[in-house]
Amino acid sequence: MAHINDHYLKLKAGYLFPEIARRVREFSTANPAAKIIRLGIGDVTRPLPAACITAGKAAFDELGEGKSFRGYGPEQGYDFLREAIAEHDFKSRGVAIDASEIVVSDGSKCDTGNIQEIFGADCLIAVPDPVYPVYVDTNVMAGRTGQADVSGRYAGLVYLNSTAESGFLPAFPKRRVDLVYLCFPNNPTGCVASRAVLTSWVEWATRNGAIILFDAAYEAFISDPTIPHSIFEIPGARECAIEFRSYSKTAGFTGTRCAYTVVPKTLRGFDAVGSPVDILPLWLRRQTTKFNGVSYPIQRAAEACYSEAGKTQIKDLVQYYMGNAKIIRDGLAKMGIEIHGGVNAPYIWLKTPGNLSSWEFFDHLLTKANVVGTPGAGFGACGEGYFRLSAFGETDQVREAVERISKLGL
Amino acid sequence: MAHINDHYLKLKAGYLFPEIARRVREFSTANPAAKIIRLGIGDVTRPLPAACITAGKAAFDELGEGKSFRGYGPEQGYDFLREAIAEHDFKSRGVAIDASEIVVSDGSKCDTGNIQEIFGADCLIAVPDPVYPVYVDTNVMAGRTGQADVSGRYAGLVYLNSTAESGFLPAFPKRRVDLVYLCFPNNPTGCVASRAVLTSWVEWATRNGAIILFDAAYEAFISDPTIPHSIFEIPGARECAIEFRSYSKTAGFTGTRCAYTVVPKTLRGFDAVGSPVDILPLWLRRQTTKFNGVSYPIQRAAEACYSEAGKTQIKDLVQYYMGNAKIIRDGLAKMGIEIHGGVNAPYIWLKTPGNLSSWEFFDHLLTKANVVGTPGAGFGACGEGYFRLSAFGETDQVREAVERISKLGL
Repeated sequence: MAHINDHYLKLKAGYLFPEIARRVREFSTANPAAKIIRLGIGDVTRPLPAACITAGKAAFDELGEGKSFRGYGPEQGYDFLREAIAEHDFKSRGVAIDASEIVVSDGSKCDTGNIQEIFGADCLIAVPDPVYPVYVDTNVMAGRTGQADVSGRYAGLVYLNSTAESGFLPAFPKRRVDLVYLCFPNNPTGCVASRAVLTSWVEWATRNGAIILFDAAYEAFISDPTIPHSIFEIPGARECAIEFRSYSKTAGFTGTRCAYTVVPKTLRGFDAVGSPVDILPLWLRRQTTKFNGVSYPIQRAAEACYSEAGKTQIKDLVQYYMGNAKIIRDGLAKMGIEIHGGVNAPYIWLKTPGNLSSWEFFDHLLTKANVVGTPGAGFGACGEGYFRLSAFGETDQVREAVERISKLGL
Repeated sequence: MAHINDHYLKLKAGYLFPEIARRVREFSTANPAAKIIRLGIGDVTRPLPAACITAGKAAFDELGEGKSFRGYGPEQGYDFLREAIAEHDFKSRGVAIDASEIVVSDGSKCDTGNIQEIFGADCLIAVPDPVYPVYVDTNVMAGRTGQADVSGRYAGLVYLNSTAESGFLPAFPKRRVDLVYLCFPNNPTGCVASRAVLTSWVEWATRNGAIILFDAAYEAFISDPTIPHSIFEIPGARECAIEFRSYSKTAGFTGTRCAYTVVPKTLRGFDAVGSPVDILPLWLRRQTTKFNGVSYPIQRAAEACYSEAGKTQIKDLVQYYMGNAKIIRDGLAKMGIEIHGGVNAPYIWLKTPGNLSSWEFFDHLLTKANVVGTPGAGFGACGEGYFRLSAFGETDQVREAVERISKLGL
């Protein structure tokens, strides 16, 4: 028998979403007539934009002809997509990101999970609490932590408390850390970082020689024109940040799979003897060795997001979901529930009424209103007493969910 | 500045295929009129099977309708594909593999690169020489090796010489190893393992408590009915092997991206205190945490490989490429060149004539015949003096390449 990676055994067995699925399944089996409305896992429900479908199908047709057939593409993505991204996602907002700094992938979950591989095993890692579990779990699997305590916090990780007092902005690390994960607009709290807040993070990273791993998967949902969409809108970020972007929520690609990571050429780490090392070639080496590029039809579908038709369709999608967010916000506010997020983000983060624990509230909502949300405790110790509702449902379902919740008399 | 993963700096800068691309580019620029024929990188050239295109496009249409839209799929692949695989790739050959033991992915490069993550950092690794570079590089990146010597061999890895004397079958390790990578039909030598040879590997692994990582990406090219397509055709393999399969070469998916890995439920490793640990849950945990499933239209396209039409189209594809292999074999044999492979595999492995080094032969072929192949030395020290030609070209091009080579008077 070969020796396994023992760090895997530190992972808590009950990953959040499987546990939710288990409880829902159990309830459904016992109550087959219950019409369950799912606002839990942040999965989209609206059809893929028509422009993406047309482009994806046309690409399949290309693959069917000898003249236009394509085999292996560049692992880092086709230039047509990287250039469209540079132009439409960055240059159009006055941000200088070159196409060669963009690495296309099959998802931000993959990218935010894999990025730690190019850093030293001895790097100190900071994560917000509450947090998207992938940032934590992948560092556990890589051996950068000890065991988890009863609250689920792993020894060796630095947790940045994000509480109501700070508007759910993570606290700055009190000790030296090498890498910090940030996510704005935030999953799960729906909070955003102003230009001033992002600037203070870039200044902190610059001062401390740290690298910010910036997850901007939800940037398309920002409506406030003063909020930066990219950390690279902040001077100095090119020297201290990596950014993750995704088509999953923006264009409904959760099952279609396309994303990208921006690693500026000017970003450096250091090697064992303290010499500076460019980060972009490390990431390219990782991706060209352990990944083989995104499927050609999918890259064409992603490119179509930047066509005139695609842009309009995506805008409509975002508006649809943000309409749902407003319905949830307005409904919960009327019930006197404390709510956060849902304005520049598709998530509503609510204080559980009556001092219920977040899993108690989960069970209450599931069994009494047949509505599924996500217990805040699943995202970390600071999420206890909170609950996440997603705006990614169908509007009529969202409306009914709010109505059912209002009848609970919380 | 954050500390980087220093192991990346051990990797040799000149990865094989980029170096080939560089030399070809240089020659093309100096000789713009030269009509270059590429039989180097093992990339397919024929159109995708029509059944796959129809299925992929239909899946895109499904994503365009609210009723049939799909968001996140299961990370390990949809049941429709896993069940088709279990039925058509295994049960039809009398091999008992359950759908739940099949984990769908976006490529065998990814899977053979990622699989080492679930094993201990202290595992001793054996690789054949010559070898597909991904097996080696991913273990270097994970820190399981020291530096490379002048021949390109990394300290700490166990190399299994595969030479003409043994019919290019890798030698059994002379010392204890934990994991051994095997690839049959072999890339780059095109040799295959008989049932007796595979049986002796399974017996060796069982006796030594090792796990075999079996890359069967080229199994569709086996024509000899006595050669096993899967290591799981060998009794005992379910307790000592993981198998990798791909649609890349079988169905022309190099740019479409779909593959799968088989991890039997009966396969175990051991943890730090020597207790047995099931391997399948570790791989599922790795994939569900660091990967998010293959794009839905691509999984439907892969499923179509098992339809009656798809099967016929794939058989035609394989025959087309194996027709090319015969043209290359026959042509080179007439020139008196020593050839291997090309009968049950799409690669022809030839002894470089006139004692040329493999890179000298590469340059000779490129500059005098404008034909690109792959120098054996790029696959390892034992590949020196050999050269790989791929059968994945267009037949008229392959024919012309052979004619041009014959005129060189080697």
